[in-house]
Amino acid sequence: MQGEIILTGTELVTGQVADVNARYAARRLHESGLPVRCVTMLGDGDPLFGEVLVRALRRSRYVIITGGLGPTDDDMTVAQAAEVLNLKLTQDEGMLARIRRRLEQRGFDWHPRYGKLSLIPQGATILDTGRAACGFSLKSQDTWLFFLPGIPQEMRLLFESGVLPVLTAMAGQPGHLVQRSLRLFGKMEIEIQQAVHTVEQEVEGVEVGFYPNFPEIHLTLTARGPEHPPLKERVERFIVALHQEVGDILLGPDGATLEEVVGRQLREQGRTLAVAESCSGGLICHRVTNISGSSDYFMGGVVTYSNQAKMDLLQVATETLEEKGAVSAETSADMARGVKALFHADFGLAVTGIAGPTGGTPEKPVGLVFMGLAGLNGVESRRHQFPGDRDMVKTLTAETALDWLRRELLSGL
Amino acid sequence: MQGEIILTGTELVTGQVADVNARYAARRLHESGLPVRCVTMLGDGDPLFGEVLVRALRRSRYVIITGGLGPTDDDMTVAQAAEVLNLKLTQDEGMLARIRRRLEQRGFDWHPRYGKLSLIPQGATILDTGRAACGFSLKSQDTWLFFLPGIPQEMRLLFESGVLPVLTAMAGQPGHLVQRSLRLFGKMEIEIQQAVHTVEQEVEGVEVGFYPNFPEIHLTLTARGPEHPPLKERVERFIVALHQEVGDILLGPDGATLEEVVGRQLREQGRTLAVAESCSGGLICHRVTNISGSSDYFMGGVVTYSNQAKMDLLQVATETLEEKGAVSAETSADMARGVKALFHADFGLAVTGIAGPTGGTPEKPVGLVFMGLAGLNGVESRRHQFPGDRDMVKTLTAETALDWLRRELLSGL
Repeated sequence: MQGEIILTGTELVTGQVADVNARYAARRLHESGLPVRCVTMLGDGDPLFGEVLVRALRRSRYVIITGGLGPTDDDMTVAQAAEVLNLKLTQDEGMLARIRRRLEQRGFDWHPRYGKLSLIPQGATILDTGRAACGFSLKSQDTWLFFLPGIPQEMRLLFESGVLPVLTAMAGQPGHLVQRSLRLFGKMEIEIQQAVHTVEQEVEGVEVGFYPNFPEIHLTLTARGPEHPPLKERVERFIVALHQEVGDILLGPDGATLEEVVGRQLREQGRTLAVAESCSGGLICHRVTNISGSSDYFMGGVVTYSNQAKMDLLQVATETLEEKGAVSAETSADMARGVKALFHADFGLAVTGIAGPTGGTPEKPVGLVFMGLAGLNGVESRRHQFPGDRDMVKTLTAETALDWLRRELLSGL
Repeated sequence: MQGEIILTGTELVTGQVADVNARYAARRLHESGLPVRCVTMLGDGDPLFGEVLVRALRRSRYVIITGGLGPTDDDMTVAQAAEVLNLKLTQDEGMLARIRRRLEQRGFDWHPRYGKLSLIPQGATILDTGRAACGFSLKSQDTWLFFLPGIPQEMRLLFESGVLPVLTAMAGQPGHLVQRSLRLFGKMEIEIQQAVHTVEQEVEGVEVGFYPNFPEIHLTLTARGPEHPPLKERVERFIVALHQEVGDILLGPDGATLEEVVGRQLREQGRTLAVAESCSGGLICHRVTNISGSSDYFMGGVVTYSNQAKMDLLQVATETLEEKGAVSAETSADMARGVKALFHADFGLAVTGIAGPTGGTPEKPVGLVFMGLAGLNGVESRRHQFPGDRDMVKTLTAETALDWLRRELLSGL
């Protein structure tokens, strides 16, 4: 049972305000097995609205329309819809009384314009929440139309109370639904897709959604059916099989962020972490500390841009800096060892590189990053060459460094 | 000259990801006097795409299409468009070579599927940024079509370099346009709105766009007319008058970010900075180092979550920590002094607080943050109580701390 959403609001097509209504409704409907096929945004009162509505009526079983229900001149949605549907507007007396009461309560004077708020097309039903929000539903041929306010809080109230229950009832018993999210990092989308195809041969009946979310790929697994336990079992079998296919690029089985996964690993293993950053400039520390309770395992970090700070704080040897340079495997190893000692931590993670756009040379181009990890059995370093601008290099550096730590903790270094 | 935007991406119509591309493009186009009439979102490969594209071609002078240019099976935008336009697909050799190089750089293997990325409709022109992003433009009858990637960073790069200049040139000389962006931090939107209304009485003919962008408010000032000099003068008069109304909550006269403004101030005054963070966990360092060339004035930073690290690295006195606690004016002052000395910097900026959601007490609730600033004439500390969740507290802490430094540098501390 497919549907669509039409948003009206000049603030949307001028980019002044980000849409939240379509996203909210689309997610709730998708979760309920009622896919949204199309979302259209138009300015207030655009004559195109009629054309868009007619086309939606032809191809969809339900249409959700938001915005343009207010008292001002540019709120024209109701009048436009009535014209397209060839319906008269009638005054809803209950609605009118409700508006009068509400104005009184808030200490506002009555104005004839407010009468407009209670004008609805013939045959429409007010969606009553007992609150202020106004909206209505209407059946036209085989299609349900829902007119909702553009203000997000009011839209959500009416959507939950007057739209979703009607649609799910109409769609019949969609049975049960089991859904899981996964995050992956370290392979291209295409390789992950191939792995998913392979698993789909083995475990049938799981729908997979792909959501590239730089620098990660997110997947959503959905199974629907009449009974819950086999669905759950099926999704779990899918995750196990996918894990076998893609290996440890699967960050965790439960959609947790990389910093959550690393935090949990450190906590479970009773280990602590310290971080030394050069080119990532604090982003690794920022991500680690986004987790509540990270103070239990995160001992601290340093951002050492200058050679002097690398020497003073992290005991990077002068000779290393002179002979190999600040961006080198040796420096990253020294930094990792140094920050581990400085904070008395079990792990020292360090990065040094060239974030750009300036500072690159033919031998050491922008995007060149060395990482060091000092653990329980010594120190290791790695070389990476990242693409993109300063922001992308910082993002990839932080993700790659945290992912390295995750893999080391997995293998029980 | 009207246009529209078509977004393809299943992640959009399932509500999994919020659109940022249409909003960005719509805003930039609106600012340039090229209104967007309609935005349509469809799932990947939906056959409806053809119908939507045909209708857009009929009524619009330009159409921007994002998403579906990738290598996987569900990336079907190019093939669908070629079919609708009745054009053959041809391989762009330059593009192919670029893709091969990029894969090599990142250490990925070649796969025949990547060849798809260089297939474009006959007559199309690759939008070349010299970087990785792929996209192309195409003229069909009187309508310009632009195909852009769905990844926001890449989309923006190509939009700015290959779309906006073409469209503004095509729109011809619409008279002159002077536009300026402003960022404000430290007052509610409604107060800023009142100030803008006051200034509008005084300086006429400047259109003001409001863009709340937590925790800042962004404004766009636009003046249009037949001649350039009076427009420029008018907008500048508006900014001066607004500055008088709102005071130094105006971060700068040119839309620069807070970290850019602070960076410029430090550079101009020949001063250096070091940062010590507790509750903001690295976010201040991350923001400061987002600016290319920040190594010239940013000496480094430390993230000291533990008391031990505050004592060892920053010389916070044991008595201070014992008597006043880690979250106190005294500790923030000691941290500021300590980090200034540690990195031999001219300014030491320090924050310590409770980001939450755990760790709060009745005396020291979640959101309580102390900041210290050690400068040329001693050290000062301030107390703040921020609202919101962990993410909001971190964001407000970093913004407020950097803004304090900006104001101090303004007054020539």
